[in-house]
Amino acid sequence: MATPSKLSGVKALAFDVFGTVVDWRGSIIREGNHWGRTKGLQVDWAKFADRWRAGYGPSMDKVRNGSLPWMNLDQLHRLTLDDLLTEFKVAGLSEEEKNHWNRVWHRLTPWPDAVEGLTRLKSKFVVSSLSNGNISLLVDMAKFAGLPWDMVLSAELFHHYKPDREVYLGAADLLGCQPAEVMMAAAHPFDLKAAQACGLRTAFVSRPLEHGPGSEAAPATGEPFDFTARDFLELADKLL
Amino acid sequence: MATPSKLSGVKALAFDVFGTVVDWRGSIIREGNHWGRTKGLQVDWAKFADRWRAGYGPSMDKVRNGSLPWMNLDQLHRLTLDDLLTEFKVAGLSEEEKNHWNRVWHRLTPWPDAVEGLTRLKSKFVVSSLSNGNISLLVDMAKFAGLPWDMVLSAELFHHYKPDREVYLGAADLLGCQPAEVMMAAAHPFDLKAAQACGLRTAFVSRPLEHGPGSEAAPATGEPFDFTARDFLELADKLL
Repeated sequence: MATPSKLSGVKALAFDVFGTVVDWRGSIIREGNHWGRTKGLQVDWAKFADRWRAGYGPSMDKVRNGSLPWMNLDQLHRLTLDDLLTEFKVAGLSEEEKNHWNRVWHRLTPWPDAVEGLTRLKSKFVVSSLSNGNISLLVDMAKFAGLPWDMVLSAELFHHYKPDREVYLGAADLLGCQPAEVMMAAAHPFDLKAAQACGLRTAFVSRPLEHGPGSEAAPATGEPFDFTARDFLELADKLL
Repeated sequence: MATPSKLSGVKALAFDVFGTVVDWRGSIIREGNHWGRTKGLQVDWAKFADRWRAGYGPSMDKVRNGSLPWMNLDQLHRLTLDDLLTEFKVAGLSEEEKNHWNRVWHRLTPWPDAVEGLTRLKSKFVVSSLSNGNISLLVDMAKFAGLPWDMVLSAELFHHYKPDREVYLGAADLLGCQPAEVMMAAAHPFDLKAAQACGLRTAFVSRPLEHGPGSEAAPATGEPFDFTARDFLELADKLL
């Protein structure tokens, strides 16, 4: 019997977003620099972005293990932000200003290849987000960045965060697919391994600049993913 | 104090789909005629479409009152279809053929003004479906018909069918909006009245041909909706 093609039967592509589709770190640094100048704030925005993102896993894990009730990512980002404003000695912001800055995560810019790659992939597959970001964050980001999603899927719909199984299996169900008919695309092996354990196909896309120049992660060589690509254009070349 | 504008603060438009965005009856008749010729079936497809749609409310009501467990609209359409195939004496279809025909609801065509109107409205508002159709039905339809949704919202996400409150309030919550920041647009007063009771704004769009020529519903004059338009182009003229 011939080995089935790794692409056989795949109908939908589900994309991780932070780091995979958008450059969260560069976006926060850029907006922070601009906003900081208008407000007269002296902040190392690269460090601020890294500290904010560092709060992401631990805060989600508190939801995942039940020590926090369900909270969406805007709410978790805000918990971390309130700590960071103290740590970075930023005082005197109004509630409206804090809320606006918390929503910088709604205004992230895509990697240069992302919009063109998604647009090409959309010609053959349903292209959907599958992110821990909440729905309104993802919808705002898609309008801001021009991301041509067919569907916006989020952990928020399942009240579970990746890498919980409920997210991957719930996404396949809503897309009307068997797990093997959905391919998860991400720059993070932990996400792909969890998807794979649920029966989804996987595509690794390397994003060596996610954490800034000089902190490139090792390429995912030797990982048993169905496809590996250096960006969304190469992914489209391989899948179309 | 001045009366607040009926549009003040509205961020998102949520659209009913069957009848409001797409011409379900004309689409089913067209595909039925074509399919029937290839299969040699003698069926009055207008009557078939009307009977299928007539099964929609009663089957959803069984879910709403708990006499059926949660089932999505593909599943409810299939229950009705199996009865109709007997009623219309259509025999000998394979499971694959029945499934394909059940999914005709994924391949409905829009009213002539729908795509242009949604595209214009999308420049200012988040435009989302808010339909009793399931997510995969709505995503397939959007790709088939070119509907430029920012977000696909469905009763399926809430395990409640319109006009249950959970659908309208759940949609506003996922969109990150207060109810009054969302405007429901529909061709059906019952849908708008339920949305209004939840605090949403409302726009009535008349679709006199939904049930075919000669069965035009009375216009919704005298109803207390925030906006009334004869199609999506006039709605865009009024909201932009």
